[in-house]
Amino acid sequence: MSWEDKVRKVVPYTPGEQPDRKNMIKLNTNECPYTPAPQVERALKEMGGEQLRLYPDPSCAVLVDALADYYGLKSSEVFVGVGSDDVLAMIFMTFFNGKEPVLFPDITYSFYDVWAELLKIPYEQIPLDDDFHMVKEDYLGGKDGKGRRNGGIIFPNPNAPTGVLVDLSFIEDIVRANPDVIVVADEAYIDFGGESALPLIHKYDNLLVVQTFSKSRAMAGMRIGYAMGNEKLIKYLNDVKFSFNSYTMNRPALAAGVEAVRADDYFKEIVKKIVTTRERVKAELKKLGFEFQDSMSNFIFATHPKLDMTKLFEELRKEDIYVRHFNSDRIRNYLRITIGTDEEMDILLEFLKDYIK
Amino acid sequence: MSWEDKVRKVVPYTPGEQPDRKNMIKLNTNECPYTPAPQVERALKEMGGEQLRLYPDPSCAVLVDALADYYGLKSSEVFVGVGSDDVLAMIFMTFFNGKEPVLFPDITYSFYDVWAELLKIPYEQIPLDDDFHMVKEDYLGGKDGKGRRNGGIIFPNPNAPTGVLVDLSFIEDIVRANPDVIVVADEAYIDFGGESALPLIHKYDNLLVVQTFSKSRAMAGMRIGYAMGNEKLIKYLNDVKFSFNSYTMNRPALAAGVEAVRADDYFKEIVKKIVTTRERVKAELKKLGFEFQDSMSNFIFATHPKLDMTKLFEELRKEDIYVRHFNSDRIRNYLRITIGTDEEMDILLEFLKDYIK
Repeated sequence: MSWEDKVRKVVPYTPGEQPDRKNMIKLNTNECPYTPAPQVERALKEMGGEQLRLYPDPSCAVLVDALADYYGLKSSEVFVGVGSDDVLAMIFMTFFNGKEPVLFPDITYSFYDVWAELLKIPYEQIPLDDDFHMVKEDYLGGKDGKGRRNGGIIFPNPNAPTGVLVDLSFIEDIVRANPDVIVVADEAYIDFGGESALPLIHKYDNLLVVQTFSKSRAMAGMRIGYAMGNEKLIKYLNDVKFSFNSYTMNRPALAAGVEAVRADDYFKEIVKKIVTTRERVKAELKKLGFEFQDSMSNFIFATHPKLDMTKLFEELRKEDIYVRHFNSDRIRNYLRITIGTDEEMDILLEFLKDYIK
Repeated sequence: MSWEDKVRKVVPYTPGEQPDRKNMIKLNTNECPYTPAPQVERALKEMGGEQLRLYPDPSCAVLVDALADYYGLKSSEVFVGVGSDDVLAMIFMTFFNGKEPVLFPDITYSFYDVWAELLKIPYEQIPLDDDFHMVKEDYLGGKDGKGRRNGGIIFPNPNAPTGVLVDLSFIEDIVRANPDVIVVADEAYIDFGGESALPLIHKYDNLLVVQTFSKSRAMAGMRIGYAMGNEKLIKYLNDVKFSFNSYTMNRPALAAGVEAVRADDYFKEIVKKIVTTRERVKAELKKLGFEFQDSMSNFIFATHPKLDMTKLFEELRKEDIYVRHFNSDRIRNYLRITIGTDEEMDILLEFLKDYIK
């Protein structure tokens, strides 16, 4: 026996690379191409040493209250964490403790199976159809012979890396069919054109909606995510959080987060710009022969019948244009391209035009 | 069956209260009474929106490198997290997966048993002796009939809330006697007068040393902790971290943390001031009849043969003087008093003089 026998051995999640090169075009980790609202920066400038020496409020009240106010919820219906990854890890730990497998799509956020492996949670990856759409019947519970018995359900909406959106009735059917487990709508990209499942949390006590400041709120560097659900769910989540790390959110994140929530006009403006750019890029890519589902996120997941996307990925890298390639079955010949500024996308499109010729 | 049957139900850790009152004297959560180095504040002022919109470096290289450089280690021997609580939670999750109980003192950091309960790790709380000292033999492994078979060992040094320090040979004996498990020296308060076990990490591959920026580095509000150990241990720890939340440290924490490490003269100066104040307060408290072990931390854990400390705690509160009281067996008649500024301690001492009269 050695101490190594007692180690929890895992194959960790591989985050997208974070190159830091001058003049690079970084379209690989779905960041926002615009800076956060000026108030956010100001909040950091006003942070003094007298605040930094003291612990932050472990209940994160200022930020929880700001979010509750923004969404018209009670503060007891909101949970915040260190990015939505922290929030999702807490959700897996808190709610996915059954014997039946947790269900999620085979092509989806590649952290789900990592959390399940880490926490020894049984899981089943349900194949998307050939157009990368979820098949609703697969998720309708096991009671009446349809779907699968399960210990919980999680999916991003829109899905990543496909960009495919499902509508509210699709989600409601799943939530309703699975009253004995928690269903998580992971809405990291919902602001770019989807309809949030948030209104359903008052109708169903088994739904959690998770969002993040990293994409539409332009604050990936600050690590803020949040979950919304009925207060019983949020209470259980907080109990586990307070059993893991009570002081997760540092003072800069709390102060800057509040300002970001308040800067609603700015938020809507940058989201609108990204959506406009996305629609233009879709049209241009189509002209070049690229194929993709109709993304409702801040990225496009594209393939091309005549191109080797692994090779294109490498060629783009040589130009300091970074996109994301997943070396996995079914999606090996796809690239996930984040929507950057119009200028950045023009440089990409110009390159592609030349490349295809 | 309902979803509630699958919830991980826990009794969470209760952090010390974080009152925020004008002119309060806050001596209840062992924060530093001095602000962090001016460079730390400056790092936040220089943080622009262009940085905030981008993910931080998940490997936290700038901060890891700064710490490695400071302690003369390789970067592969350093792990950073969101406060030492995050680091310790990761350590419990990564290394304490045996069937034998993890050992720690009965009077100690009250988060240890909470992590064990959360993660379903068997544990045994070993009584300190009547003077609040660890009995070394209890921790010398089970092979030769001495001590207890165990799945790991963790203790703070100096211990909290007692302030009692053990020396390096004490720790080395424990580490040497337990080659098949991980031993964690939780050194949150080591800078206030103790000798770190850090030199032992190159001699033993089963020792982790954990420290924090929250006490001696005056940055409780920033949430930075770190572990140091041989690179195999750090690798395992990083694997689990990357399976839980890849981007834990936000950009402000990384930037400010680096500045704090570099400001070594400032750091040594404030630590010296706190130690000087502590020794003076010890002498004053003794004159007033208080009894306590010789604390080597930034707090004093005191009782008084003629006073009801629960009552004193309440009386202090009325004066906006906050100290910490633990409602637990063996220590119910003690108060943990953080060392504040000289001015703050003078107000406390004046009050106590009057109170005792």
